[in-house]
Amino acid sequence: MKKKIVVIGGVACGPKAAARVKRLDPDAHVTIIEKGELLSYAGCGLPFYIAGEVENHNELMATPTGVVRDTFFFDKAKDIEVKNHTLVKSVDREKKTVCAINVSTAESVNIPYDSLVLAVGSKYQIPPIEGTDLNGVNFLQTIADARKIRNESGTLKGKNAIIIGAGLIGIEVTEAFKKQGMNITVIERLDNAMGELLDPEIAFHLHNEIKANGIALKLGESVMKINSDDRGNVKSVTTDRGEYDADMVLIAVGVKPNTRLAREMGLEIGETGAIKVDSNMRTSDPDIYAGGDCVENVNIVNGKPAYTPMGSTANKHGRIIADNICGIDSKFNGISGTAICKLFNCNVGRTGLTERAAKQQGYDYITVLNPSPDKAHFLSDAKLIIIKLIVDRKTRKLLGAQVAGPGAVDKRIEVAAVNIASGGLVTDIAQFDLAYAPPFSPAMDNIITAANIAENKLNGFGKSYTPYEVHDKIENGEDFMMLDVRSPQEHKEIRIEDPRVKLIPLGVLRSKLDELPRDKEIVTFCKISLRGYEAERLLAGSGFTNVSFLDGGIACWPYKKEMG
Amino acid sequence: MKKKIVVIGGVACGPKAAARVKRLDPDAHVTIIEKGELLSYAGCGLPFYIAGEVENHNELMATPTGVVRDTFFFDKAKDIEVKNHTLVKSVDREKKTVCAINVSTAESVNIPYDSLVLAVGSKYQIPPIEGTDLNGVNFLQTIADARKIRNESGTLKGKNAIIIGAGLIGIEVTEAFKKQGMNITVIERLDNAMGELLDPEIAFHLHNEIKANGIALKLGESVMKINSDDRGNVKSVTTDRGEYDADMVLIAVGVKPNTRLAREMGLEIGETGAIKVDSNMRTSDPDIYAGGDCVENVNIVNGKPAYTPMGSTANKHGRIIADNICGIDSKFNGISGTAICKLFNCNVGRTGLTERAAKQQGYDYITVLNPSPDKAHFLSDAKLIIIKLIVDRKTRKLLGAQVAGPGAVDKRIEVAAVNIASGGLVTDIAQFDLAYAPPFSPAMDNIITAANIAENKLNGFGKSYTPYEVHDKIENGEDFMMLDVRSPQEHKEIRIEDPRVKLIPLGVLRSKLDELPRDKEIVTFCKISLRGYEAERLLAGSGFTNVSFLDGGIACWPYKKEMG
Repeated sequence: MKKKIVVIGGVACGPKAAARVKRLDPDAHVTIIEKGELLSYAGCGLPFYIAGEVENHNELMATPTGVVRDTFFFDKAKDIEVKNHTLVKSVDREKKTVCAINVSTAESVNIPYDSLVLAVGSKYQIPPIEGTDLNGVNFLQTIADARKIRNESGTLKGKNAIIIGAGLIGIEVTEAFKKQGMNITVIERLDNAMGELLDPEIAFHLHNEIKANGIALKLGESVMKINSDDRGNVKSVTTDRGEYDADMVLIAVGVKPNTRLAREMGLEIGETGAIKVDSNMRTSDPDIYAGGDCVENVNIVNGKPAYTPMGSTANKHGRIIADNICGIDSKFNGISGTAICKLFNCNVGRTGLTERAAKQQGYDYITVLNPSPDKAHFLSDAKLIIIKLIVDRKTRKLLGAQVAGPGAVDKRIEVAAVNIASGGLVTDIAQFDLAYAPPFSPAMDNIITAANIAENKLNGFGKSYTPYEVHDKIENGEDFMMLDVRSPQEHKEIRIEDPRVKLIPLGVLRSKLDELPRDKEIVTFCKISLRGYEAERLLAGSGFTNVSFLDGGIACWPYKKEMG
Repeated sequence: MKKKIVVIGGVACGPKAAARVKRLDPDAHVTIIEKGELLSYAGCGLPFYIAGEVENHNELMATPTGVVRDTFFFDKAKDIEVKNHTLVKSVDREKKTVCAINVSTAESVNIPYDSLVLAVGSKYQIPPIEGTDLNGVNFLQTIADARKIRNESGTLKGKNAIIIGAGLIGIEVTEAFKKQGMNITVIERLDNAMGELLDPEIAFHLHNEIKANGIALKLGESVMKINSDDRGNVKSVTTDRGEYDADMVLIAVGVKPNTRLAREMGLEIGETGAIKVDSNMRTSDPDIYAGGDCVENVNIVNGKPAYTPMGSTANKHGRIIADNICGIDSKFNGISGTAICKLFNCNVGRTGLTERAAKQQGYDYITVLNPSPDKAHFLSDAKLIIIKLIVDRKTRKLLGAQVAGPGAVDKRIEVAAVNIASGGLVTDIAQFDLAYAPPFSPAMDNIITAANIAENKLNGFGKSYTPYEVHDKIENGEDFMMLDVRSPQEHKEIRIEDPRVKLIPLGVLRSKLDELPRDKEIVTFCKISLRGYEAERLLAGSGFTNVSFLDGGIACWPYKKEMG
């Protein structure tokens, strides 16, 4: 007998599950129910469509070789029945039947299933303020949304756009709007962009890039109201700190899982508010699977549930669901919360826990900051990247990694994510046989150096302070010396302006030890902390008992106002 | 009592070991003996110096922040004594003394050691033919070599350069010579560039890039003799197939480990001909360590010794040697033979075993070919990369990976190398939470898709042939059908010219099954094998019993002459 599979949701996880079921079991009868017109589009591509980088929205629906995955394609090429423009009204779990209605024809259908797949995605959040429904106030989720925003923004050159929310979508749309020639203000409630995903000293580089591109960035500022002119068009945005003129507003304050149907069906909802599934992607009803943006995942770093909607994860879910439907016991291992974005010339990636999260969760950890060129420093196209590692002191495993800068951020995040997924120690990274040639990396890859620094710290070689800690010491008026061991030329170009700072280049430090106080704490630093570490070792080896170096040096010092 | 450490060799492993010893044990007395003038230079940067991309050779000796690591720097900043221009004559292992001679002053010194480090590197091979000592015949190893080549090549614009050997160095110098405006012929004894490092269908893309840049490539051709004019200058190169005019010759046929000293000292030499060390990097004399290009490594894929000289490995060795000297039990895990190079717009990387090596060593393996864009296909700067995986059928572990193409090859190699080093299964790759956003990767990263294909093959879903196998079938005159399921437009642009080929686009295949023979084998294909695989599944599901798809499709078909 033919198995009957019904998939609700036609964007990422759903079509993936449907297509793989058909490949594993060509006899299965597979139906996809989708409320919109379109299927299998790359939702993550919408900002690039707004920017005009993607000309036609069909490109977002195409396979890599240009085949458009429309209803016809699913029918003819894959023998999958697609009911689009169709809303699911209810599911009868006893009778195993989906009741749906075609919103164009108002026709009702009952579709029986053996296995049901919920791939119903997420919905943008609407902040509880006045004015979110005004003309010119936009949300971005569907191709229709993107088309509307692209059309509007195309007529607003030189006008004011307000982006509410500096998360992944907000940041990508910022670049799109800039290309459209608008004046942009980004307003973020939290103290840094990408919110909970980054620690401040990594977000700092993203902030700099935003500002360097002439975009106003308002951090730690809450939107209270969106104001209208007398024709119902958006006019301005009021925050707890001021008012900003607006010809267009994009609200991108995050998404929440679509759980209406699951709740109505009585399926278990997890503590994150998303649908709970087991490692086979089964819901609390064993005949019903769920995947993609509507489910919660397990974070493999701490074993806790996490809501981390991501197109890459949705595709993985789809495959695993299909396997299980077809009798293959495939399990999803979980996520480490990897995310990445590009803003103009700055790339920022992250995986695992932030330092903030590690602290909140009570880990005993060390951190590493390693700023260095992403390829052999003698090549003119070498670009800076800054790696931050957070390492569990007890297990010596990576808790998280963040990387920012104009250089190749992504591949260092991949190494960190794979190290976490493989259950290895952070010190294993230092042994990885990574691909070295000057156009690709330094002889010791940046993340290998970062792992070596982590090992030193775990073993108690080299004492250091994070930028926060040193900044706190300064703010608290502590009496200590900050020893800059760079060259006079480097010191002239950029420096920390503070009376505690003394300059003695590393090359002459050994001969000038008598200029240093033996009764005072000394914090050494240089541009990237290679010489700073060397100086710390030198002083510690010369009997100075209270010496540390500044993690990441000047390159990672996020307190601009102290800079000369 | 101060520990006395003597390091022989001042390029990569040696200075790294010396510097870390001083950081761990500031009281140690460390001496580096180097036969040349220069220390700690980036040997891998020499081709970029020849190309003029690196202006001054000091840049190759600098730290990332521009500090030149000369004798003065080692003395003043690191308190390391450097004896350069100094040759080691002998080592007395009983008395633990190094006897060396300064080649400038002819002065002899005896230097006692507690621990000795051999970091004596490798030496280019000189082929046993006539004419390798002519004027204009060059080898590339030292900064002096590079300076000579750069000076000569600067005067040879429009003249003929012959590069003997298409290994990593030969390829990098090819690009450098092209920038100098020379007419270049590359002669390689083996059938493909990068020799044993690549399988032919990956090397194929490198060959295309070489030819596309107007460089003559002679494969499977052996140089017999280098010919002189009447003034002792190189005039031409004679091979087993012809003679080529030459105004300059570069010989880059590989390197061999420097083992003279180790042999004279009676240290154990490994089966690869390099110095044998244990996992602590100790030689057969427990007070003598060795690392870098003079030692052999263990290949972690098969546990066998391998000679894989690489700057990245040398740096790792240096650190581990220093640890052990200072009483820390650090072990080197081994290498997987990762290598990468860039030639104009083509990147080629590899790790682990090639298919050829896997076959020779008796593995039961499967292979995967996955050609696809390196980022979201709808972005205009998405570029093709081709991934080949070789997977052990028994253990389901990756034996090796090769990646080629204009796109981001390196990060997929990193993922493969880390997967191998972590001891995971190839199917683990499919679960990695890699960094996805359209500017960085497709929603399912290329290597995740490759791992999924591997899983399908290991589980027997989807039968396929490699390009070799299909080509053999054609060559053997077998009667079978090659079913092209692309669009008529794609078929018009490029196709396999063979009477066995029939075109039925995937979208109409279901309705045209009666046009296909049920008694004949069918091999389906498309551009990249996504549709080819789909067609195979469709036919297999429709009762066709002898169907396979062509791995990698047209994009991976390396037989140009059959192309229309």
